[in-house]
Amino acid sequence: MIKQAKVAVLGATGFTGEKLVEILLSHPNVEIVYLSSRTEIPVPYSKLFPRFTGKTNLNCEPIDVKKATEKADILFLSLPHTISMDFAPGVLAQGKKVIDLSADYRLDADIYEKYYKMSHKDTANLKKAAYGMPELFKKKIEKASLIANPGCYPTSVILALYPLLKEGIIENKIISDSKSAITGAGRKAVIEYHYSNISNNIWAYKPFVHQHVPEMVEILKAATSASIDLLFTPQVIGVEAGIYSTIYVTFKKVASEEQISAVYAKYYKNCPFVRRMSSLPKLKDVVGTNFCDIGFALDEKKRNAVIASAIDNLIKGAAGQAVQNMNVMLGLDETTGLL
Amino acid sequence: MIKQAKVAVLGATGFTGEKLVEILLSHPNVEIVYLSSRTEIPVPYSKLFPRFTGKTNLNCEPIDVKKATEKADILFLSLPHTISMDFAPGVLAQGKKVIDLSADYRLDADIYEKYYKMSHKDTANLKKAAYGMPELFKKKIEKASLIANPGCYPTSVILALYPLLKEGIIENKIISDSKSAITGAGRKAVIEYHYSNISNNIWAYKPFVHQHVPEMVEILKAATSASIDLLFTPQVIGVEAGIYSTIYVTFKKVASEEQISAVYAKYYKNCPFVRRMSSLPKLKDVVGTNFCDIGFALDEKKRNAVIASAIDNLIKGAAGQAVQNMNVMLGLDETTGLL
Amino acid sequence: MIKQAKVAVLGATGFTGEKLVEILLSHPNVEIVYLSSRTEIPVPYSKLFPRFTGKTNLNCEPIDVKKATEKADILFLSLPHTISMDFAPGVLAQGKKVIDLSADYRLDADIYEKYYKMSHKDTANLKKAAYGMPELFKKKIEKASLIANPGCYPTSVILALYPLLKEGIIENKIISDSKSAITGAGRKAVIEYHYSNISNNIWAYKPFVHQHVPEMVEILKAATSASIDLLFTPQVIGVEAGIYSTIYVTFKKVASEEQISAVYAKYYKNCPFVRRMSSLPKLKDVVGTNFCDIGFALDEKKRNAVIASAIDNLIKGAAGQAVQNMNVMLGLDETTGLL
Amino acid sequence: MIKQAKVAVLGATGFTGEKLVEILLSHPNVEIVYLSSRTEIPVPYSKLFPRFTGKTNLNCEPIDVKKATEKADILFLSLPHTISMDFAPGVLAQGKKVIDLSADYRLDADIYEKYYKMSHKDTANLKKAAYGMPELFKKKIEKASLIANPGCYPTSVILALYPLLKEGIIENKIISDSKSAITGAGRKAVIEYHYSNISNNIWAYKPFVHQHVPEMVEILKAATSASIDLLFTPQVIGVEAGIYSTIYVTFKKVASEEQISAVYAKYYKNCPFVRRMSSLPKLKDVVGTNFCDIGFALDEKKRNAVIASAIDNLIKGAAGQAVQNMNVMLGLDETTGLL
Repeated sequence: MIKQAKVAVLGATGFTGEKLVEILLSHPNVEIVYLSSRTEIPVPYSKLFPRFTGKTNLNCEPIDVKKATEKADILFLSLPHTISMDFAPGVLAQGKKVIDLSADYRLDADIYEKYYKMSHKDTANLKKAAYGMPELFKKKIEKASLIANPGCYPTSVILALYPLLKEGIIENKIISDSKSAITGAGRKAVIEYHYSNISNNIWAYKPFVHQHVPEMVEILKAATSASIDLLFTPQVIGVEAGIYSTIYVTFKKVASEEQISAVYAKYYKNCPFVRRMSSLPKLKDVVGTNFCDIGFALDEKKRNAVIASAIDNLIKGAAGQAVQNMNVMLGLDETTGLL
Repeated sequence: MIKQAKVAVLGATGFTGEKLVEILLSHPNVEIVYLSSRTEIPVPYSKLFPRFTGKTNLNCEPIDVKKATEKADILFLSLPHTISMDFAPGVLAQGKKVIDLSADYRLDADIYEKYYKMSHKDTANLKKAAYGMPELFKKKIEKASLIANPGCYPTSVILALYPLLKEGIIENKIISDSKSAITGAGRKAVIEYHYSNISNNIWAYKPFVHQHVPEMVEILKAATSASIDLLFTPQVIGVEAGIYSTIYVTFKKVASEEQISAVYAKYYKNCPFVRRMSSLPKLKDVVGTNFCDIGFALDEKKRNAVIASAIDNLIKGAAGQAVQNMNVMLGLDETTGLL
Repeated sequence: MIKQAKVAVLGATGFTGEKLVEILLSHPNVEIVYLSSRTEIPVPYSKLFPRFTGKTNLNCEPIDVKKATEKADILFLSLPHTISMDFAPGVLAQGKKVIDLSADYRLDADIYEKYYKMSHKDTANLKKAAYGMPELFKKKIEKASLIANPGCYPTSVILALYPLLKEGIIENKIISDSKSAITGAGRKAVIEYHYSNISNNIWAYKPFVHQHVPEMVEILKAATSASIDLLFTPQVIGVEAGIYSTIYVTFKKVASEEQISAVYAKYYKNCPFVRRMSSLPKLKDVVGTNFCDIGFALDEKKRNAVIASAIDNLIKGAAGQAVQNMNVMLGLDETTGLL
Repeated sequence: MIKQAKVAVLGATGFTGEKLVEILLSHPNVEIVYLSSRTEIPVPYSKLFPRFTGKTNLNCEPIDVKKATEKADILFLSLPHTISMDFAPGVLAQGKKVIDLSADYRLDADIYEKYYKMSHKDTANLKKAAYGMPELFKKKIEKASLIANPGCYPTSVILALYPLLKEGIIENKIISDSKSAITGAGRKAVIEYHYSNISNNIWAYKPFVHQHVPEMVEILKAATSASIDLLFTPQVIGVEAGIYSTIYVTFKKVASEEQISAVYAKYYKNCPFVRRMSSLPKLKDVVGTNFCDIGFALDEKKRNAVIASAIDNLIKGAAGQAVQNMNVMLGLDETTGLL
């Protein structure tokens, strides 16, 4: 049994990479042996992020996959899309494990090509990758060498919908009105992310066509025999962290609050990070945590429900879930280092 | 023709009342002759709100409707629901005009009773009240003595939907996912509105049952022969001001972007405060203004559209629209004092 | 007497330029005849800033000083430092007036060179420029062709200190602890101004050496015979707008609150934009206005006072004061278009 | 050696109490055996604070000191000022330990009376109480039964100044311009703490007379033979958490940056929670942590320094420091449960 895993983080200076380092540093069964980013020379990580002063003496190094593979048992790839698939094959070939936080191993090759305008370069491993949502795919994750860590929006939407679709009790036409902190777009120096444009603002973007739609649809389709007609509207809101998805579903036949609660309980009773709230959740209750809070309100007669799902976009929506996956892969308690 | 109207504001210390005073003070055709609130003795308004220092020497007085009616031509009632209907009859009987910002004259008596748990006390005037949305009901407003100034959520939703329903091109099942600043709930000393609870937060509340639903449904029903099945989800977001409604509609038959734009143009081409944006609007572009920005995205094949509508909840959603109504009543240009 | 001035704004897409356009558009005695910025081809201004939709049809053009000089009576230069002095001489030579919002005409040539690492190229006009703070230098502004519009920090600090220094009642050792919105640093696409770095943050920067120090010292020195020992600490705070300067002074001999108030009254009794508040001001009371709110607290026995001065950094600290200067130059009421 | 301490939190629903519960729940050597607040009947703590759902099943009970004393080894009193001194004597008499987060045991009886308008009721224990700042008074804390946990402002100011005063290298006239999140004022339902009043705002209050001044002065006086002339200006800023103190000191004779750094190193080299930053700190780097970040800038010639000190007001300024004190009392590593 692995007591102390050696891990590497490639892409340690993005918002997700930074959060990953934060979580891993206080994880009792992990030793970070390698950090890297797009830097020319090694730089103390705490110089890049002064808030890590006194917490780590690690350097952030220029990216060197070979070196990372030699030193670490598990590599977290927190890299821009289309780059992970260059690196992963070599790492896996050396018998090391990969938790990829990009979209590279989440989609079928043809869909990937459509959304990322590039042929998939590693279809062999793509087939073997486990979709890293432990609440739903724990068995596969336990045995996997390559994890496709879910996207942030998909995490909030899939956890809310999967049980209802799997049980076949809702219609396949679904609307998700999702609101996200801007950190989901990555740490980029663009005018649009300037404080004055985000603060006190909200706007919808990319309706119908967001690249997270196929991810949600593929996973949810697997839960049901029918196709999924998901209308997804992402929105930027001026909050520091979090995604709040307000989801509209219609029940095939009249369902009571108790029945719906029972369905969620059936799927999540052993899932420490999914909380079925007695009322509609508030975003702030999950910020800084790996929880996904789910609540709903029911118009029983009309068979409509509003389901609200809240996560921290960088934690349950990215770095936290990645560590949760690592825990499952290592045979540790799922919550280790995450509560 | 009235060049200088004398106005009174009853309820001048709520968020809406304060905004009303701000707008009226810089309105070229208005003289504020009376301000009042729940105070024991007259207090300089600029002492209650230091930001008005140097802008007005008016006192805020204990509420005295008789006095206000004597002094003013037009009375703005910015009072809690169920109180306006006590005051309005007396004012109207003296031949003065009333712009009521509460819900008291917005709903049919039976629906009012259902939502406000109280019989309506002034059904005679209720029938004569004009619903104060100049973009849709200008003719009636011009001749009215009593204006029911619309609610904030209804303003954002009705302006987005009325043309489409009136033209009969969308189905009657509609979802509005609306997000509002907390100021819409009034200036109250409650823990829930504490900075630390609102900042960086978002949550849904009162799904299906919000008291603004019947207002929207009644007005929209009048636009169409069919009934309206509106699923409305209000949400609090941590912004200083504004409402952002993301509205989901289905077209009866395939409609192009040009066709839909033409419908909006038909209804709003002479409406200076409704802006048809070429993309989905951003909340901040309307904050501090009386504009309602409307944009939409279309999935032509599926006949779905996402319509987004943005207003400043205290301006177009309350005080600004009230002044716009006053302008119409006085025969002034609609935009006077509002641009 | 000029009834309608034709104005141009060069640099209309920075935070200050945008605010300038906003104020000028609603100014009753102004017609904007020319807008420009670093653009290759003319673009509708409302396309660059959708919030101006329906408010202006003007294009923003590539910078062409000659064209601007031909069309306008007054040119607002809202350009990066070191560029205005290239443009101003030509404009002035054509008999047109310049209100320069950069630092180019605020400092003596030798001090300018020290702080901006460049020789001053237009020392002839530098000598004639009026420092555009109407509360203190109205006479000179009335006759000037070239206005050096004050910096944002200096506006908040100088207005608080000038009367006390001029009357010779405070010691020359002064500390100003000033906090500013990030918009003061200009609209730049840098990681440091990313929402996530500014929101909920505060930090001090450039202590002792900020480029606004010599501006404050030069102006204040002129008020007194002695030298000024000003310790100035600028700080970024996560607010949308505003500067709040907390200033520490020592009185030469015991002074009462009444005496100090009398000094302020002597200098500012006819100044509509300086408000002597009865208690320490709050930043939000001036946001969106051209006011400078000043309040103080006195430890009479120890002869210490804490003076707090609040302005909107883009209005009284930049665009609003520029328009106030224009009003003075045009012989209009100082408050025209600004209340 | 104590492996598992039983602790009680009295006053578990204030901001500090809530943070205390959060920290204690994840502390490896602590079992919370009792929570209480002003409630009539026991209520699940996670019902009061839904964010604790799945983290604790504890009830929050009506305050019963006797019961708490029986069940717990250590009692955290997170109660309003003047109440702790009613409870502490009984607890101490039973041989249990008290960590008091109020001001009741921080000041000499005569000064307490002056600031809290009430005679001190427990002068016997007041004399024995240890001031709970482990960086400075660890020895006394190790043996104490009663800890006076420091105030939030004093923590930020004292840690920055103590070494310099103790070494006798700065003059006794000091200014601290301190900015705090509103949570420092407690969870109260008052209009002043409404989101709309705090967001984007900053204002100074209680200059010269804040009740934290005597606490700072008493502790700092003990470091030096001379008296302390501290001018302290507290300010509310619209941030979620934190205190940022900008402190102005004058060195008695010219000191270099190295010399000053050496002084800090001498006092804090074994203090894991005080970080000497190489530049002026940013508030956000300490939010959510128990760190106090200290940086300074020096005008060597003028012998002036600006020292900036940043803490999370509810952690290092309250709950975190309380747990740090508990760790010291229990002989645990100071950082247990706090990193």
